[in-house]
Amino acid sequence: MKDVASAAGVALKTVSRVVNEEPGVHPATAERVRAAIDRLGYSRNESARVLRRGRTATIGLVIGDVADPFYSGLSRAVEDVVIGHECLLLTGSSGEEPVRERELVETFFTRRVDGLIVVPAGDDHTYLRPELEAGTKVVFADRPPEAGLDVDTVLADNAGGAEQAIRHLLGHGHHRIAFLGDDPAIYTAAERHRGYRAALGGLYDPRMVSMRPPTLEGVRADLNRMFATDRPPTALFSGNGRYTVTTLRALAGRPIALVGFDDFELSDLLRPGVTVVAQDPSWMGRVAAELLFRRLRGDVGPPEHIQLPVRLIPRGSGELP
Amino acid sequence: MKDVASAAGVALKTVSRVVNEEPGVHPATAERVRAAIDRLGYSRNESARVLRRGRTATIGLVIGDVADPFYSGLSRAVEDVVIGHECLLLTGSSGEEPVRERELVETFFTRRVDGLIVVPAGDDHTYLRPELEAGTKVVFADRPPEAGLDVDTVLADNAGGAEQAIRHLLGHGHHRIAFLGDDPAIYTAAERHRGYRAALGGLYDPRMVSMRPPTLEGVRADLNRMFATDRPPTALFSGNGRYTVTTLRALAGRPIALVGFDDFELSDLLRPGVTVVAQDPSWMGRVAAELLFRRLRGDVGPPEHIQLPVRLIPRGSGELP
Repeated sequence: MKDVASAAGVALKTVSRVVNEEPGVHPATAERVRAAIDRLGYSRNESARVLRRGRTATIGLVIGDVADPFYSGLSRAVEDVVIGHECLLLTGSSGEEPVRERELVETFFTRRVDGLIVVPAGDDHTYLRPELEAGTKVVFADRPPEAGLDVDTVLADNAGGAEQAIRHLLGHGHHRIAFLGDDPAIYTAAERHRGYRAALGGLYDPRMVSMRPPTLEGVRADLNRMFATDRPPTALFSGNGRYTVTTLRALAGRPIALVGFDDFELSDLLRPGVTVVAQDPSWMGRVAAELLFRRLRGDVGPPEHIQLPVRLIPRGSGELP
Repeated sequence: MKDVASAAGVALKTVSRVVNEEPGVHPATAERVRAAIDRLGYSRNESARVLRRGRTATIGLVIGDVADPFYSGLSRAVEDVVIGHECLLLTGSSGEEPVRERELVETFFTRRVDGLIVVPAGDDHTYLRPELEAGTKVVFADRPPEAGLDVDTVLADNAGGAEQAIRHLLGHGHHRIAFLGDDPAIYTAAERHRGYRAALGGLYDPRMVSMRPPTLEGVRADLNRMFATDRPPTALFSGNGRYTVTTLRALAGRPIALVGFDDFELSDLLRPGVTVVAQDPSWMGRVAAELLFRRLRGDVGPPEHIQLPVRLIPRGSGELP
């Protein structure tokens, strides 16, 4: 359809109107579209039509906060897949509040979305069961639902990435590595702490761990407490992109080895550049959305649990002695 | 309603169900909600109900790219206002392509959105006229529609902000100030160039101007060309956040005075800190969404043209001699 639109020099919508014999197209334009169709041998995408039949062609996306670059990258990718399937996207930010997550999801269900992608804020998803049983497709991204609910998930290798970060710092001679991460109630934070702990083994010391929402005052206070111990840290592992930025701000130029989970814009422009374990939020969004559309096309196989690899990018901060 | 929900320990949706006498609430829960309503003296928000009557309670938002922090900040603010009015938000990124902007807008209309907020990619909006005449409310944010269309707009003081940036650099002794900005077909880029030119007056030299999409290769080539002239620039003014980041990357540490339009995360952590003319995308989103809901509540006054002020934040790079 895109080729037809561009060959005929009209909007995609116009092609759609001609194909579906809807009114509102000037006869000369319609003729031009039909000529382009003949020339290009266009044939209607029946799977897209079947997909839409009896459905609302609307997908819902619930994330934590679209203003956070991780979520906005994921959103853009979901949007591209959704629009590529000629569907529309309803979006909402939970602000990490379980109640708001549930309200958004329930409102999306009221609007009869065909499918839903959720980055959950809460860990009680019993409220989803009736909709799931009624056949609505749901994919969880970034974080899984409560343990009892077996649905499709697309998660990053959080623990593995944290292990990679810690092994990298150990390899550069550090034995005293602190972890600054988000609230342990957040799945990804807990998983990254798990990987950190596993890689440290006998070197693990709970006094070197701080897990709470990333406020500047909080991070500053925790760093001061750690630096005041008899054996202060020589390296830091920060648990997500927001945390890395907050930690850099709290350090205010104090030189210390640092590896952060999540890449972020300008990480290469800071001095030293910031070594990160990068996940790809666009990739996650794309994989989750494609899995959802596969389900909508009728794939009724057992729930899939896709784990996306992450990769360590050395830029200087993680290689400080 | 939020107070009732929290007093009764239930989701907002449950309160709504009880108030609207919808099924699906356990009698004991409903009783608890009614008790909370009595206790708190809750009365139904009739304006929200009137607003919804006969409408879809859905708002459409078309932006350039949700993965760009300017747009994601704006989106989050729009979303908060929309959800605060118990409506839902359909979103789409045009990727700065006029055809895609139009497709998104037309699809949103097909879904009968009550209102629309658009950051336009194109400058032909004749396609909007039938919907506007049919009473659909549209607010343009960040960029106005084509000249002939008089609708509500919420724009930043682009030219004024650029003038402020240039006067700041002139005040620090610079007379040779280059402008690196986006495609002049983009309204904000053209306006910022206009302010730049006005503030420079007789010092304006077209050889010191580069306007095109911000690719690293392009910026690097333009900088090299400018630095190779007989009178190279001693200061740079970059026309938006993406441009500032690309310019910093292209400069690769070469010290030169710089002021950027748009603030960005980490601008304070670079050395020197980056002096910017900051606009507030959240504010713009909030003002645009509130104006839209005012229209939906029946305000039929003449179109409003709101201009939001910007402010210069000195951080070091703009104060280099």
